Amino acid sequence: MSGFLLEKYRGISPYVPGEQPKEAGYIKLNTNESPFPPSEKARERYMRAFDKLNLYNDPENGTLTGAIAEEFGLKRENVLVTNGSDEALAFIYMAYAEKGKPFAAPEVSYGFYPVFSRLVGADIVTYPLKEDLSVDAEAFAKCDLNVIFANPNAQTGTFMPISDIEKIARKRSRLVVVDEAYVDFGAESAVALIRKYPNIVVVRTFSKSRSLAGARIGFVIAAEDIVADLKLVKYSFNPYNLGRAAEAAATGALEDKEYFDTCREKIIEAREYTLRRAEALGLRVIRGKANFLLMSSEDIDGGELKNRLYDEKIIVRHFSSPALLSPYIRVTIGSMDEMKTFIKVLEKILSGVRK
Amino acid sequence: MSGFLLEKYRGISPYVPGEQPKEAGYIKLNTNESPFPPSEKARERYMRAFDKLNLYNDPENGTLTGAIAEEFGLKRENVLVTNGSDEALAFIYMAYAEKGKPFAAPEVSYGFYPVFSRLVGADIVTYPLKEDLSVDAEAFAKCDLNVIFANPNAQTGTFMPISDIEKIARKRSRLVVVDEAYVDFGAESAVALIRKYPNIVVVRTFSKSRSLAGARIGFVIAAEDIVADLKLVKYSFNPYNLGRAAEAAATGALEDKEYFDTCREKIIEAREYTLRRAEALGLRVIRGKANFLLMSSEDIDGGELKNRLYDEKIIVRHFSSPALLSPYIRVTIGSMDEMKTFIKVLEKILSGVRK
Repeated sequence: MSGFLLEKYRGISPYVPGEQPKEAGYIKLNTNESPFPPSEKARERYMRAFDKLNLYNDPENGTLTGAIAEEFGLKRENVLVTNGSDEALAFIYMAYAEKGKPFAAPEVSYGFYPVFSRLVGADIVTYPLKEDLSVDAEAFAKCDLNVIFANPNAQTGTFMPISDIEKIARKRSRLVVVDEAYVDFGAESAVALIRKYPNIVVVRTFSKSRSLAGARIGFVIAAEDIVADLKLVKYSFNPYNLGRAAEAAATGALEDKEYFDTCREKIIEAREYTLRRAEALGLRVIRGKANFLLMSSEDIDGGELKNRLYDEKIIVRHFSSPALLSPYIRVTIGSMDEMKTFIKVLEKILSGVRK
Repeated sequence: MSGFLLEKYRGISPYVPGEQPKEAGYIKLNTNESPFPPSEKARERYMRAFDKLNLYNDPENGTLTGAIAEEFGLKRENVLVTNGSDEALAFIYMAYAEKGKPFAAPEVSYGFYPVFSRLVGADIVTYPLKEDLSVDAEAFAKCDLNVIFANPNAQTGTFMPISDIEKIARKRSRLVVVDEAYVDFGAESAVALIRKYPNIVVVRTFSKSRSLAGARIGFVIAAEDIVADLKLVKYSFNPYNLGRAAEAAATGALEDKEYFDTCREKIIEAREYTLRRAEALGLRVIRGKANFLLMSSEDIDGGELKNRLYDEKIIVRHFSSPALLSPYIRVTIGSMDEMKTFIKVLEKILSGVRK
């Protein structure tokens, strides 16, 4: 750090990027990406976009914004597209959180919520998960702060039924931000509640179910005045935040409903297979609706299991903190073939550690 | 705006995106884009990047960061790539400006500097331009605040000699941010000064001289500790800020030195042609080194001239404020053919308004 850096950043520890294998041949089940390539319609639009790369994109990203609005039966004014959903979340923190005005979040959730809090100088208020690792909807319903949670929740994959979200949203004096990065794999979206509860803000991404993690596209769906707030931040921060390549690929992906459904069905099928087989091997598996599963074994520690899998060229994620997560590994759901290999390797490792 | 928006944003007026023609057939000389397509090497890398769009990009963008470092004979630790140079500037404001700690900027410069100031709650301190519309280097050398200016300057195109930048940088107790969006069209870069003056921060873009405005790529070149500061902000805001498509296109563009030189030579040639011909038509033209020229006529007001050109399907930019700029139009330098058409149309309009 330089001597010029503002005092307020002194306490922040920089984010450490996730592990990326340098060599080929690894099965990568650690960052919740899609194992499938993007849609061919995304490819076509992406290729055509190159011819106009010398010209600025439309700062309103009208093509993609319109397509998303249509997809959800809403108006363009209900949609803001962003450079990945992290940018959407950052804009939300910038618009609504500051010192003395924190968001409440689950104790275990997307690791970036506390980072955004520190970025805007806000405090961090968290509620513990319940015994079964699900988010405590009652606690959020009672609290008076703006709230944010992922649904399905990050790291655990547990999901909150829409009726619980409604309970939380009933207190209209504060915002309810629902981060739906993983919603397309079998959970229910809160988008349907937005007309009734204008305090609900839904954040989405093209990174998981649309196979476009490397293209960086996120979006917000909310009441018009909320979107207007976030546009004010966007236009004060980076008016041309979503370039032509990303807009083109995302628009193409959205058009290809058949491919989208095929991909997510395959993930759901592979997830249910993995769940059954892992449970049959004696693991505790958190029943989630995301494109990953959290699982633990009584015979081997989470960190150790992760290392053993790595030796066998399978990369999964292990969180040493919070302590609640440390017995577990988080396994991204890849293709059925990848998951069969994972189960085979898991079986081999477990048979070795069981006396 | 919603009732949830933080008080501090209440005074901010949203940015109004520049005019984009809906119909074809316009000569677009209003947003300082390149009239040339990106390099074929950019195309090749861009096309190949699609195959991995389902995977997150390297959050360090090592390929592009390394290529930029090599291009300038610096280390990777001296470079941070961003989602357009606007994001780089926003990160700089976030890291170094706050209430009571403003940047000083020229009164007429890139219109976004005051917007970033308001975003971080900082005051705005500006110095007037000199008689000839150039930036007042003496005033900046004397001032004790962090300073920011574009070189060549935005809107005017005037440039500050490197010796003046050195004079400003000598006061090492504060940062000197040099926004070099337009430097590749004949001005001198401050990058050469960075080793000697670790308080200089250079901001660059691929939008103008690299024909990639629609791909959104900017970068910062600075001392290692400054880059570390800005990385802290990046990793607290959006770790995967530059996607695979942008990184690929930029890396390809950087490899094609021959095409880069050809394009900028063509722009310089078309600029000098435009300058000579416009002066011959009796206009006052500010002698600049950017890919645009600021010009005014005694016979017609800037806003009116802009409208007349628009009627003839040529789009230029007019700034009604600050008052200093209102007599002028700002004309982006397109291809030689476009500039010949521009001069022909200009001649026709002027012959009509002169009695």
